[in-house]
Amino acid sequence: MTARTSSPSAPAMLANWRLSPHSAWAFHHVRELIPTAEIAAKPSGALASRPIDLDLSQLTFAGGDGRDWRFSDLIDATHTDALVVLHRGAVAMEIYRGAYDGTRPHILFSVSKSLTGTLAGLLVADGLLTPDDPVVKYVPEIAGSAYGDCTVRHVLDMTVSTTLEEAYLDPDSDYARYRRATGWNPVTDPSKETDLHGFLAEVPRGPEAHGTLFRYRSPNSDLLGWILERAAGQRFADLFCERIWKPLGCESAADITVDRSGGARTAGGISTTARDLARFGELMRLGGTYDGRRIVPSAWIDDILTAGNRDAWQKSEFGALMPNGCYRSQWYRTGKPSGAFCGIGIHGQWLYVDPRAETVIVKFSSQPEPLDEALDHAVMAGLDALARGIAATG
Amino acid sequence: MTARTSSPSAPAMLANWRLSPHSAWAFHHVRELIPTAEIAAKPSGALASRPIDLDLSQLTFAGGDGRDWRFSDLIDATHTDALVVLHRGAVAMEIYRGAYDGTRPHILFSVSKSLTGTLAGLLVADGLLTPDDPVVKYVPEIAGSAYGDCTVRHVLDMTVSTTLEEAYLDPDSDYARYRRATGWNPVTDPSKETDLHGFLAEVPRGPEAHGTLFRYRSPNSDLLGWILERAAGQRFADLFCERIWKPLGCESAADITVDRSGGARTAGGISTTARDLARFGELMRLGGTYDGRRIVPSAWIDDILTAGNRDAWQKSEFGALMPNGCYRSQWYRTGKPSGAFCGIGIHGQWLYVDPRAETVIVKFSSQPEPLDEALDHAVMAGLDALARGIAATG
Repeated sequence: MTARTSSPSAPAMLANWRLSPHSAWAFHHVRELIPTAEIAAKPSGALASRPIDLDLSQLTFAGGDGRDWRFSDLIDATHTDALVVLHRGAVAMEIYRGAYDGTRPHILFSVSKSLTGTLAGLLVADGLLTPDDPVVKYVPEIAGSAYGDCTVRHVLDMTVSTTLEEAYLDPDSDYARYRRATGWNPVTDPSKETDLHGFLAEVPRGPEAHGTLFRYRSPNSDLLGWILERAAGQRFADLFCERIWKPLGCESAADITVDRSGGARTAGGISTTARDLARFGELMRLGGTYDGRRIVPSAWIDDILTAGNRDAWQKSEFGALMPNGCYRSQWYRTGKPSGAFCGIGIHGQWLYVDPRAETVIVKFSSQPEPLDEALDHAVMAGLDALARGIAATG
Repeated sequence: MTARTSSPSAPAMLANWRLSPHSAWAFHHVRELIPTAEIAAKPSGALASRPIDLDLSQLTFAGGDGRDWRFSDLIDATHTDALVVLHRGAVAMEIYRGAYDGTRPHILFSVSKSLTGTLAGLLVADGLLTPDDPVVKYVPEIAGSAYGDCTVRHVLDMTVSTTLEEAYLDPDSDYARYRRATGWNPVTDPSKETDLHGFLAEVPRGPEAHGTLFRYRSPNSDLLGWILERAAGQRFADLFCERIWKPLGCESAADITVDRSGGARTAGGISTTARDLARFGELMRLGGTYDGRRIVPSAWIDDILTAGNRDAWQKSEFGALMPNGCYRSQWYRTGKPSGAFCGIGIHGQWLYVDPRAETVIVKFSSQPEPLDEALDHAVMAGLDALARGIAATG
């Protein structure tokens, strides 16, 4: 009742919001925990609906984890909050579970990166942003950091050379300091803390040349948001709203967390409804148009689907999940025969676009662990199976 | 551009958001500074519009401050962000100034109290809340505080006996500790801080009996919100949304700031658009109905317009502003012949309902000082003159 939680014993707070059982409530109430900037919507009408009758307990697949799964069991095992499937642009399946009913924005975590990477393409087409230019051209403040001698392309593709580690669970790491800088974790000593932009200016350089290794580091994606703000001369929330959210006619306002100075957490802080994220996925599936209107340049999406440093990817720890894959402009290309590409966020957030099956799948979750490699393999296989199952019905 | 401020030199932050020049931006971007709970809307259509041609530079009045004013000069002098006037329910005048265009929720400060006081009446009518009952019946946690032996009525009418002072500008006062507890000011030492409900449980008892003196203390109104949550078994934002905001058909979602544990700042943390607040004022002017539907019990509004401890009021420092006035259930009754009553918030927020002139006036401002007694006298006189001017045209 008055407590804000899924737990009867204690409220969700900044100190516990990503932990189970609080996360099942907190992941769709982020604005009550962290300051947020609104990404306003300009609704153009609801998505069409053409329900598909597919028995998910009969949809079985071999999980990449070596197990055989029923899709319905996967839904349970991955603490699914929402599953929304579009087939040829219409809602084929829509499931909400537990505390989540689909009306509020749900946090995307690192699927936010893919939204940001798409927005970058609009500024490139406008001539406001050049991927091969040095980052310092846009953000001179980071000259003394790992970013001081890299290009925007290195940032887009996560091939920046840095010794910073992505350590989600170590409270004493630089990554924990990063979390405090973003406003995502409680500050313990305000006199010693910096903000997000201050943190980015201190990210340490790694030993190798930029562009040689795939190093998944979230601060890169926050920097990308800062670069876009500087290139366009607008705050991220306003820019994303005007260039993508309103043109797309989304049904609901989205939002993004901001730090104490207003710095936008483009690496993970965007929340949307599942329907609106599916609509964004449909935009990607259609090569950048929606309802017949061009929103994202086709060349940018073509590049996401074909280019990138596959060698750097395959040498990385991510290579096992998508052996023929790649990471380009903040999107994962799966390398599957379907041509599927996706955005993925911790605790089980997925935006999965399957061109061959003409299907877009959004899966929101509150998985207890930020990363669960075995489950991720199972979900990858499951979404592929679901897309094929959907396509087979139509 | 990327900075969030009206100042070219520095962003608005939690440490400066109520100070000029930051406030002109921050007062309609509170959600970017403090966590907020959404109060969703269910729009039933825009307000009717019947513009009235009234030259505000020709509308003159004697300010209670001893000066003669033009209304247009008052608009400037009080750093007006919005002025929206309804006459017989239709928009007669609508002005937005500076950084504010009327589309975002603007903070009401203590006008929030009046919204909360109205909501209380719905629970009274439902039999969920009894004003003469002790507060501890609803919130036993405050048994050891000034509230331990007072009634809900004392809280509603600000006649709780306490030694707490309402010191807006002293950074070392209990009031500053209160501000940190609500999440409105930065915490300097997290190990020493409490949250809003923890603060309320420690409010010190005063020497006199409850009910004898009018003591305007904002924590009373936060406690009222907590009482309503307990009485209804719902969080404030959800309760206010379901019982008032959606039935009223407001155009936009409102919001309320919440502390680190989710405690709602019902004393001052609600933000609405000016149009929606005017619609709420119209509901009050019409005795609790809107568009022919009963939303607030008429007995509760009758009580606000007639009852209360005028003796306690006149002995207080507020008596000078409204000599024949009173404070009842979180509303100011002006005591003017017009029968006007109002909600007032620091930095120049007004919801002014003038029954005789069939007029509702909303004035949002970003006055540099939280309190400015001379200006408040001028605004009181000015709103009365404006209402009479509006009524004279129709």
